[in-house]
Amino acid sequence: MLEVTILSRDAATYETLFRNWMEQPTSTSAHDQLTLAIATDNPLRIQPNRVQVLLSEPDLALKVLGDCNNLQWLQSMWAGNAPLINHAKHDYILTAAKGIFGAAMREYVFAYLLHFARNLPAFETKSWHRPVFEPLQGKTLALLGAGDIAKALVPIATAFGMQTRALTRSGQANGHYDAVFTPQQRLTFADGADYVVSLLPDTAATQHFIDAEFIGALPSSSVLINAGRGQTVDDTALIHALQHQQIKAAVLDVFAQEPLPPDSPYWQLPNAIVTCHTAAISRPDSVFDVFRENCMRWQRNEPLNYVVDFARGY
Amino acid sequence: MLEVTILSRDAATYETLFRNWMEQPTSTSAHDQLTLAIATDNPLRIQPNRVQVLLSEPDLALKVLGDCNNLQWLQSMWAGNAPLINHAKHDYILTAAKGIFGAAMREYVFAYLLHFARNLPAFETKSWHRPVFEPLQGKTLALLGAGDIAKALVPIATAFGMQTRALTRSGQANGHYDAVFTPQQRLTFADGADYVVSLLPDTAATQHFIDAEFIGALPSSSVLINAGRGQTVDDTALIHALQHQQIKAAVLDVFAQEPLPPDSPYWQLPNAIVTCHTAAISRPDSVFDVFRENCMRWQRNEPLNYVVDFARGY
Repeated sequence: MLEVTILSRDAATYETLFRNWMEQPTSTSAHDQLTLAIATDNPLRIQPNRVQVLLSEPDLALKVLGDCNNLQWLQSMWAGNAPLINHAKHDYILTAAKGIFGAAMREYVFAYLLHFARNLPAFETKSWHRPVFEPLQGKTLALLGAGDIAKALVPIATAFGMQTRALTRSGQANGHYDAVFTPQQRLTFADGADYVVSLLPDTAATQHFIDAEFIGALPSSSVLINAGRGQTVDDTALIHALQHQQIKAAVLDVFAQEPLPPDSPYWQLPNAIVTCHTAAISRPDSVFDVFRENCMRWQRNEPLNYVVDFARGY
Repeated sequence: MLEVTILSRDAATYETLFRNWMEQPTSTSAHDQLTLAIATDNPLRIQPNRVQVLLSEPDLALKVLGDCNNLQWLQSMWAGNAPLINHAKHDYILTAAKGIFGAAMREYVFAYLLHFARNLPAFETKSWHRPVFEPLQGKTLALLGAGDIAKALVPIATAFGMQTRALTRSGQANGHYDAVFTPQQRLTFADGADYVVSLLPDTAATQHFIDAEFIGALPSSSVLINAGRGQTVDDTALIHALQHQQIKAAVLDVFAQEPLPPDSPYWQLPNAIVTCHTAAISRPDSVFDVFRENCMRWQRNEPLNYVVDFARGY
């Protein structure tokens, strides 16, 4: 018998998803061994010593984590879990919500790639003319990170006739990129990168990875999209580069401080687009799919999906 | 020996392409049998009775066509050739420029599909918020016409997880659509069509195909893109539908009269985007590729590519 605690702003939705699952006929014995302790959006309603399995948003989980002495497994609702990783408590299994953001992210990324490639704003002038634009075909999509989200972008990029390159810790990747680079080769990676999409997680190694030197190696016609984590960008350097047109534009979904403060220069820069951490939203039904699969793996004593390595940081 | 006449606004570019081709070493005997009579942008400089093979834009060709008594073959620089088809003279082979617009068209179409799906304009408000948007994934792309341009859209639509349907004269299609409809089934085709892309040619059968009845059968959330020919749309009906939000938006590349007159209501409608016949521009090097291939076929007495059927109208 295993008790599940749900702590989430969408507690009611998750409770419904859990109860619907429990009511389904099934061939496994998982149902008999799972019960719901509580589903709430209020950390004060949790009895920490009763928490064995926790399904939660990291920022809410953080409010009870230190007192959960019997915590065995925490299924996060987020892909990036720096708040939990940075906490001292590491004596439990932390699993991330992954494999569910590719579909949203590929639409986000290509919406902006095509926005710039086809020069859509130039058609707002309400007159018959032929603006300048350049096809995506033949251009290079350069991906910082080569996880499951990057992998979801590659078939679309290939279908549009783009070249792809990826930069990863190891210089190895499990997808089909035209070239793969190590962090040490980042300036070579940046050279000729028409569209750069950062999917880097927030780790010690990625702090300000996108700095003045990296930005300086990008073509002046390049567009930078940050859909990873805000801490990976040196904002002073990027703002300077945008102000001086060292690159064409930046599309920024994530920031070191969220919500982005109203006095941030990004709001006013004509070549910066702020998308308010909406690129790939955690939808409860998708997150619950990850949790359900992991519950069944837990019951069968199989390794869980998307286990976070506290030392590596993701 | 065959003489080629080039009549085009880009005459100098085409002359260079022709001369470069003639200078290439080749294994065929095509070069020995081809010469350039003249390359000009001025119809008055043409000696009509000398014209055997003509490479031309249809609107310019029309100025000399009636006098070209020895014309054997006209390679058009356009995909749609209504001006030539509607001319009384049909005693020559007319070939269209096709197979070269798919790459540009797929970027045009998906730029606007993603623009609406991701609700890009909602991010221009310069404040931290989460606008409403709906994924392309699971939506239906409905294609009026199933030629080579439609075919170029399908791999991208499929990669985004969209359903595809096509409407063709025969109800048959050579691509991989989830469903194919005949013109008689057009209201069923329209039902549930989230994104409609018209690639219809300008023929007697397609005049005002997109009329009040067809538009009325579309979902109110649908977006209509016309990248075919302007004559296929009943503008009175479409303008009325846009004014009354019967559909969400229209993206219009082609018009019954081009340039679109300054007093057209399309310019002022907030849910209409006018893209000034730029969706897929005839690039001389791509058009010349079609012409060169057809020249070699001509020399070898093989059927030419993209021969226009004057009776069918495309």
